[in-house]
Amino acid sequence: MNAHIESVELEKAYRLINHGPTTLVSSRHDGIDNVMSASWVCGLEFKPAKLTVVLDKSTFTRKLIEQSHKFVIHVPTVSQAQMVHYLGTHSRAEQSDKLATAGVDFFQLPESHLPLVAGCAAWLYCELIPIEQNQIDHDLFIGEIKGAWADSRVFKEGRWLFEDAPDEMRSLHYIAGKRFYKTGSLLDVE
Amino acid sequence: MNAHIESVELEKAYRLINHGPTTLVSSRHDGIDNVMSASWVCGLEFKPAKLTVVLDKSTFTRKLIEQSHKFVIHVPTVSQAQMVHYLGTHSRAEQSDKLATAGVDFFQLPESHLPLVAGCAAWLYCELIPIEQNQIDHDLFIGEIKGAWADSRVFKEGRWLFEDAPDEMRSLHYIAGKRFYKTGSLLDVE
Repeated sequence: MNAHIESVELEKAYRLINHGPTTLVSSRHDGIDNVMSASWVCGLEFKPAKLTVVLDKSTFTRKLIEQSHKFVIHVPTVSQAQMVHYLGTHSRAEQSDKLATAGVDFFQLPESHLPLVAGCAAWLYCELIPIEQNQIDHDLFIGEIKGAWADSRVFKEGRWLFEDAPDEMRSLHYIAGKRFYKTGSLLDVE
Repeated sequence: MNAHIESVELEKAYRLINHGPTTLVSSRHDGIDNVMSASWVCGLEFKPAKLTVVLDKSTFTRKLIEQSHKFVIHVPTVSQAQMVHYLGTHSRAEQSDKLATAGVDFFQLPESHLPLVAGCAAWLYCELIPIEQNQIDHDLFIGEIKGAWADSRVFKEGRWLFEDAPDEMRSLHYIAGKRFYKTGSLLDVE
């Protein structure tokens, strides 16, 4: 585990995803874990903190979430881009050793309920608010954020600090194919 | 109007927002226009192309959309950051000259149905798919993307080209307060 991990106030947890990073979604049910990549993750509510995530019916992770009603949204970094791409293009349904092959290393915090993928910049533990019509008609899932943590080298006192960190600790923004943008430089308005 | 504007294939329209940029949301009803900023805009479906947008009950733009069932999602640029911040922190409900004060300049394309804010990098014209429970309980609106356009200096043949364009044409990623990140540099995985 990383000694830099600090918990994030739930009312500020939306800031971990507000800039639109590519994420990883994980879940566990009946002792089986999976992790997939997802670009379509979005803030929904400040208090209680909520988010949305779009999970295609073909995904193994969706089935775990439908059973366990629990998931973690991760904000991975530039140094994990290869792993993020792998996790988004391979399904555990066809490849039972997907996580090991991708190089996923899990750790757990006392209050995290689920295992967290090591090396990310932030983690949001969510509990599903089941709305069957959205899930069936639109693959749209709503989660309440019940716990949030970040690597304090890049997120501290409620804000990202990518500008002060090494390039490989920045977050990712997926485009298509094998291509991402890194989170860029700061811009302050008056 | 900008001579560089080209239409974007609807099946690739999700790519205009897939990297998580801050957006502007506009609507018009009964001859009244408004534009607000929104970070919580997200892809939902590739075909037919759909997206979600979170619109607080206090916003004037939401009322226009509830009436007209039409809206435009814009991808604004670094050179518009001041305007984006202004549009997100002032309500037309209290300030009838909000758009003029913010410096919003509209133009229209023959097929755009609604006016578009000049100077943006991309525009997605959407028609509301009304789902009352989502709108009331979660401020969550679903739109089908019915038309999409981009500035071909930064988006061409289905992909963003920020790396080849001047810094001020990059998109924005809102953090909090008066602070944004610019879209950063490219990262290709193997």
